[in-house]
Amino acid sequence: MSESTSAFALSVLGLSALMTDFMGDRVPLPDGVRDVLPVEAAELSALETTLTGVFSSFGYREVRTPLIEFSDVVDRGQDRGIGRAYRMFDDQGRVLVLRPDLTIPIARLIATRMADEPGPVRVSYAARAVRPPSAGTGQGAERRQVGIELAGAGGAEDDAEVIAALAAALQAAGLEQPQVAIGSVALVDAVLDAVDADQDARDALWGALQGRSMVAWASETRRVRRARGRLGTLLAELPNLRGGGELLTRIAKIAPAAADECARLLHTLDLVAAYGAPAPMIDLGVVRDWNYYSGVVIEAYAPGASAPVAVGGRYDALGARFGRPRPAVGVAVTLDLLHHAVGVPEGREPRGVLVVGGSDTRVTAAAMLRATGIPVVGVLAAYAGPEEFARTQGLRYVARPMKSGWKVVDVTDGVATRIASLEEGPWI
Amino acid sequence: MSESTSAFALSVLGLSALMTDFMGDRVPLPDGVRDVLPVEAAELSALETTLTGVFSSFGYREVRTPLIEFSDVVDRGQDRGIGRAYRMFDDQGRVLVLRPDLTIPIARLIATRMADEPGPVRVSYAARAVRPPSAGTGQGAERRQVGIELAGAGGAEDDAEVIAALAAALQAAGLEQPQVAIGSVALVDAVLDAVDADQDARDALWGALQGRSMVAWASETRRVRRARGRLGTLLAELPNLRGGGELLTRIAKIAPAAADECARLLHTLDLVAAYGAPAPMIDLGVVRDWNYYSGVVIEAYAPGASAPVAVGGRYDALGARFGRPRPAVGVAVTLDLLHHAVGVPEGREPRGVLVVGGSDTRVTAAAMLRATGIPVVGVLAAYAGPEEFARTQGLRYVARPMKSGWKVVDVTDGVATRIASLEEGPWI
Repeated sequence: MSESTSAFALSVLGLSALMTDFMGDRVPLPDGVRDVLPVEAAELSALETTLTGVFSSFGYREVRTPLIEFSDVVDRGQDRGIGRAYRMFDDQGRVLVLRPDLTIPIARLIATRMADEPGPVRVSYAARAVRPPSAGTGQGAERRQVGIELAGAGGAEDDAEVIAALAAALQAAGLEQPQVAIGSVALVDAVLDAVDADQDARDALWGALQGRSMVAWASETRRVRRARGRLGTLLAELPNLRGGGELLTRIAKIAPAAADECARLLHTLDLVAAYGAPAPMIDLGVVRDWNYYSGVVIEAYAPGASAPVAVGGRYDALGARFGRPRPAVGVAVTLDLLHHAVGVPEGREPRGVLVVGGSDTRVTAAAMLRATGIPVVGVLAAYAGPEEFARTQGLRYVARPMKSGWKVVDVTDGVATRIASLEEGPWI
Repeated sequence: MSESTSAFALSVLGLSALMTDFMGDRVPLPDGVRDVLPVEAAELSALETTLTGVFSSFGYREVRTPLIEFSDVVDRGQDRGIGRAYRMFDDQGRVLVLRPDLTIPIARLIATRMADEPGPVRVSYAARAVRPPSAGTGQGAERRQVGIELAGAGGAEDDAEVIAALAAALQAAGLEQPQVAIGSVALVDAVLDAVDADQDARDALWGALQGRSMVAWASETRRVRRARGRLGTLLAELPNLRGGGELLTRIAKIAPAAADECARLLHTLDLVAAYGAPAPMIDLGVVRDWNYYSGVVIEAYAPGASAPVAVGGRYDALGARFGRPRPAVGVAVTLDLLHHAVGVPEGREPRGVLVVGGSDTRVTAAAMLRATGIPVVGVLAAYAGPEEFARTQGLRYVARPMKSGWKVVDVTDGVATRIASLEEGPWI
């Protein structure tokens, strides 16, 4: 970059930043929320359509739940309640909550509105969860997620299907080798059974896991009486264990109480392979913030994403809390994080036409083209700089009426052509 | 219906209603919100895609705004504030509000984040507005709308474009002859100028219009001193006047102060006709609940809809309230109301395959089909009643592996065929 360009760029950026600050001060937005402008919104929508399409090809059908629910109803979804959330009152003083999570409302819907369906029930959603951001984390308050939930027989087949559908969705979205990691709440519990941990120790150890504190985990494991020898080493290392099927075989030998869960996860890995999906990594440090998970827990990572782009797991006890016990497993992709990782999806090149001319000309000519689905925007003949405007609008061509026919400029390369009528333009 | 069928149907319905009540009591939802199940959700999504596609062909590009804003920022959008809304506090005790309207946030976004764009700015949105339902109205608390806003030069061209885009969207959605009515806040104001109404009278008359009280309108108009003769009759009848261009010509003669606005509306009608859109009806009783409208106001009706399926208008003063004056006009379709009016969109026939078999078979066979976008769901070989299950899932075919090849049943007509491999099934 030459010095003069650089100085110019800086002054433009400086002015723009000043303007933003100025407007931001006068027209502020709450912490953790933001506006999404056209280019990004189009990319997010395209990504959402891709994910939803893949989930639909696995038989998942969209449902929608309200933004607002009764707080005490949503609280049932989580031991000790849902915690931080936006709450408000209705006319009768009942406490309402903005859904801070999407799995709980979908589990509620399946357990009530779909209670009579024999199942398996496969549903999908594309919706926002809303939660007050924790101070200083830079976390967003609104999280748009595209997810699926499978309430079925509860077997490893269902776990594998959800993992395979997730991998297919991430691949379709542009992540060539999606990295999926799976842990298991049930496996950790089985190891705690194996060492005879009492309730206090269990609570402390789960607290350490949830808090991702290896220091706390280490100090708590030392207090567990029976954790000696290979079993003691296994317990101490558990949150750090990562690997493939061989890891599960090893754990089953050291802690026979965990053998069933290890066998189930091995079967899951086999089934995922049968789908042609990349092999998930076993990672026993994977735990989720929500304590309704009861079996497999799922995370997916992408290069450049600051947090897992997808999270989920099995939550067999959630249905019963809403009156209809049914084992279930699900996963949700966080749209912003995936978008950040995959960048611009393909096929987002400029398209469409900016038609310059008096109102009559542009109106009638444009109507014919729009019917074919091509974006057409009209500007008055006096409009200054239609090429620049077309560029900012993501439109590829500028068409000007001439004495006979039209002059067409492709704003991506500046090449001009002439055509007799708009119907024979290069945009068809 | 035979008596026995009827008795059976009643007992099933009775049981189902009881179940719903029972679950509804135990797992209640707040007033005015609801869950949307798969069939309806698919129809709503299809409708949304259709509307968005038409708006996109007019050059409108999607933007997204937060669900949550600062209450005092949104309050700026409406004289005397936005009124009824869900409010809550953030960590610092600032009052937040769930957006009760979508035009105000979009106007805010255009005036701040898009302030530097020379325009015209064309944006679209598909989003939920949320507002506490008024007791006893049966009104929903959540209203999903697909809308457009055009911040431009402020001419009749822009009004006509928005009206034409709305008509095209409603036609594409399945309303063959969309009935669009337009009124004008500016025209009513001009007539009040013509009769020299003072501020008190104006406030009272606008109050009567907003409250749709013809009794209040009649009593208030009698107090306006200069409203005599033809001008008095015009004023008294104003909210009831409906017609075409000739109505505007008549008003312009009786109230010359309104002549400019009449001419503008006549020009708008001409331009709408040039788009090939159905002629809007002039209806001077059309007013909107939001007082930010300053010019044309727009409503669209559909047979069977309990309220206008689309509403909008011109709001030239809104941009300035967020720091960037710019005339603008927009309209929004309320998805539920339009869906109710158009019923099931075309192309929603059952499609996809339910593959019966052991997990290996169904997994590998299904993967090949899904890649082509066809919904494929697997069930275990032991699953009882796969045909009924396929029907409830909107899947058209059930495929069972035979000694060689597959047996395929079309559940819509019960016809069975045999195929050698799933790739040659009738679903391709």
